[in-house]
Amino acid sequence: MSDTPQSSRMVIGALIEANGIHPASWLLPEAQDDAPTDVDYYRGIAQLAERGKLDFIFFADTPAARTDDLVAWSRAPMYMNMLEPITLLSAIAGATSRIGLGATASTSFYEPYNLARQFASLDHISHGRAAWNVVTSANDYAAKNFGLDKLPPHTRRYDKAKEFLEVVKKLWDSWEDDAFVIDKANCFNFVPEKQHAVDHKGEFFELHGALNMARSPQGHPVVLQAGASETGKEFAAETAEVVFGTGSSLEGAKKFYDDLKGRMAKYGRDRDSLKVLSGISIVVGQSEADARAKLESWQDMVHPDVALLRLKQDIETDLSDLPLDEPVPLSRIPESSNFHQVYFEEIAGMVREGLTLREICRRYNRSKTTMCGSPTEIADQMEAWVAAGASDGFMFTFPALPSTLEDFVEKVVPELQRRGLFRQDYVGTTLREHLGLPRPQNRHVSEPRETVAPV
Amino acid sequence: MSDTPQSSRMVIGALIEANGIHPASWLLPEAQDDAPTDVDYYRGIAQLAERGKLDFIFFADTPAARTDDLVAWSRAPMYMNMLEPITLLSAIAGATSRIGLGATASTSFYEPYNLARQFASLDHISHGRAAWNVVTSANDYAAKNFGLDKLPPHTRRYDKAKEFLEVVKKLWDSWEDDAFVIDKANCFNFVPEKQHAVDHKGEFFELHGALNMARSPQGHPVVLQAGASETGKEFAAETAEVVFGTGSSLEGAKKFYDDLKGRMAKYGRDRDSLKVLSGISIVVGQSEADARAKLESWQDMVHPDVALLRLKQDIETDLSDLPLDEPVPLSRIPESSNFHQVYFEEIAGMVREGLTLREICRRYNRSKTTMCGSPTEIADQMEAWVAAGASDGFMFTFPALPSTLEDFVEKVVPELQRRGLFRQDYVGTTLREHLGLPRPQNRHVSEPRETVAPV
Repeated sequence: MSDTPQSSRMVIGALIEANGIHPASWLLPEAQDDAPTDVDYYRGIAQLAERGKLDFIFFADTPAARTDDLVAWSRAPMYMNMLEPITLLSAIAGATSRIGLGATASTSFYEPYNLARQFASLDHISHGRAAWNVVTSANDYAAKNFGLDKLPPHTRRYDKAKEFLEVVKKLWDSWEDDAFVIDKANCFNFVPEKQHAVDHKGEFFELHGALNMARSPQGHPVVLQAGASETGKEFAAETAEVVFGTGSSLEGAKKFYDDLKGRMAKYGRDRDSLKVLSGISIVVGQSEADARAKLESWQDMVHPDVALLRLKQDIETDLSDLPLDEPVPLSRIPESSNFHQVYFEEIAGMVREGLTLREICRRYNRSKTTMCGSPTEIADQMEAWVAAGASDGFMFTFPALPSTLEDFVEKVVPELQRRGLFRQDYVGTTLREHLGLPRPQNRHVSEPRETVAPV
Repeated sequence: MSDTPQSSRMVIGALIEANGIHPASWLLPEAQDDAPTDVDYYRGIAQLAERGKLDFIFFADTPAARTDDLVAWSRAPMYMNMLEPITLLSAIAGATSRIGLGATASTSFYEPYNLARQFASLDHISHGRAAWNVVTSANDYAAKNFGLDKLPPHTRRYDKAKEFLEVVKKLWDSWEDDAFVIDKANCFNFVPEKQHAVDHKGEFFELHGALNMARSPQGHPVVLQAGASETGKEFAAETAEVVFGTGSSLEGAKKFYDDLKGRMAKYGRDRDSLKVLSGISIVVGQSEADARAKLESWQDMVHPDVALLRLKQDIETDLSDLPLDEPVPLSRIPESSNFHQVYFEEIAGMVREGLTLREICRRYNRSKTTMCGSPTEIADQMEAWVAAGASDGFMFTFPALPSTLEDFVEKVVPELQRRGLFRQDYVGTTLREHLGLPRPQNRHVSEPRETVAPV
């Protein structure tokens, strides 16, 4: 039972969504009513995940509340009432000491300088535990909050995202690690030559200046991505350090994994410098049947309005006028998706299969494979996925909080530890250390030097 | 020694700047080298201010580091290395329970939706202690970080600020206070009719949507301002809840106070709904002579490069080629200021007086009156300013941290309490309660209802 070498361990992240990712989670007896805006609730969840030695917690985000279909949205209120993730993570940092802290922020709706600052600040505040999930946003509600009628096309958003990330990374290298070395005797607070102002003029952004902050403990926050389109995968292969995959089966996940890692060589990147995590939901029970029964009982609580609404959102057209017990005519499905490619394909696939609308509603689960089973069975599945080369670990979503996370931490993690598949305790203090990712060297330091922690 | 009625108390805010506001503060033996990026240092400072029952702490901000004159800036490194204030305040919130948490954020460089979210989130996270200082920014270094060559003209920036604040306040009223009332039996997470989407199309911003967050504990964060120009004062009279005045004497402060409060009636506002705080620096000693000697010893530590640099920044022209011991030719002073009106006028005034460059360097102090004296003498001065109707309280800057704040909290505050001029302890829990400001009613609730805390 000695500790596992870094390389053979799996990475485990936890996506935290108020009362849970399941649309009926807020209706369960365990659900705390004011969880969405209760910082102490989230501190408790983060501490629970840290007790389980997880690599990081993560908050998804969209900068918009729905403003139509409100009756239906009120029955599954995702993103209607939430704390803003960067402020929330800053507040959680002080209540934890090891667990990584990641959040989504959109390159379509932020200014690079502001975002570079806030994530670098979070990295300082958390002593090296920050991670940024780079997304281009995926709904027009957000666009309307930022002066646009609708989102620009997919590829255009990615062009902007690419330049955005480039600018942000330049800003994060504004100062060498040992720039702020205080020399009171000679009245120098920093070494002037160790500032490197950014001088950027691109298609989307022009920026001439330096970040007003010492380089952060991790060099820069860990860069996460989740794109599954061709453009998204190419962007990830070039720039991401962690990618959330959305394979709906071990085979699908392995295909995604091999595809993505295979694209890295042409960018001169080592395969180990990118961790691919499978996005999977989890329910632990006494047995698989017990776990499945739990999940079914939650599915039964989902209001009929909700399933149709989720479908409408992801297939980008309203099907609620169609009869529930007939197949959906192919002609009703748009030719291509402008938003979530994977979700779109999942629904379109079921339509092509000839399923009825009711069957699609019941079966559609946003590509989330749900691992159901006893602690041993869950550990078996996790071990199998990683052993098969389908992933470097998991980005778990928890259907109901806190119970499904508690079950995972208290029952599955010890089993993984027993098998030597997961850490007994944190070894390092930064997220990069947990993930086994190198601390990036400042681009302005040409010779390989010892990296020095910022003063 | 019974507690003072709210109405007769003075308001006290503390502007916190790393090692202190004095340009030599970082050179003092008490200065912690890594203070600028050490969240625990700031938590300690906030707890100290809370021990003194102060109304709020406050962080100034500018979204830029200087990129020229670096040798000189390294000798007085303001804004070169700092945590981003919104993340910092979110991190401080959990280490305190009563003290208000305010920060500057620029209407020139943020998106209204992002800023509305983050300050509302901070208000939830701190359980009602957030405040936003609305500024238009005052240097071209910032402009260059956001795609501009230089800042738009003063009045243009204020036009934008006015619309920005309007949009943000609309977003803060997106949901009625009792919108998120969970009704599990009927499967309603919120009351659909209690969402009020913003529908705004103005000169600078277009926004159609709702904030994705329940209305915050204070209704909305407290709105601070500091503008001293005609435009700035008019904007403040219409919209600010707290204003930082920059009077350099009791007489100047009283003039500013009467001027500002006199402008409120035409906006239908009660004079008490706006608190004017005098921006003053403070040094406590055994006696006035002792305090002045302390301040002089710090002045003596300021490197000659620094004084000329600050002058250059605020008069918006470089005077370093001029002989130090001759009067500055009037012709060298620009006709008007595009940045800090008050600082500009202070320097221009000294030039018109015929002072030598050396004298101006020595005397120029960015309009900061410094109260020097024994605890009793400081309390006398504070009492005199408020009694004379020159201010509703003070926005103190502390030359050296933590010592000058410690002195204030441990020596001056007890004296103010003894005189019944300051609270013995916090009565309420929100910043609005400390300040005696009403909780604003949601604009969409027409009849006066009991205000209800958000669920």
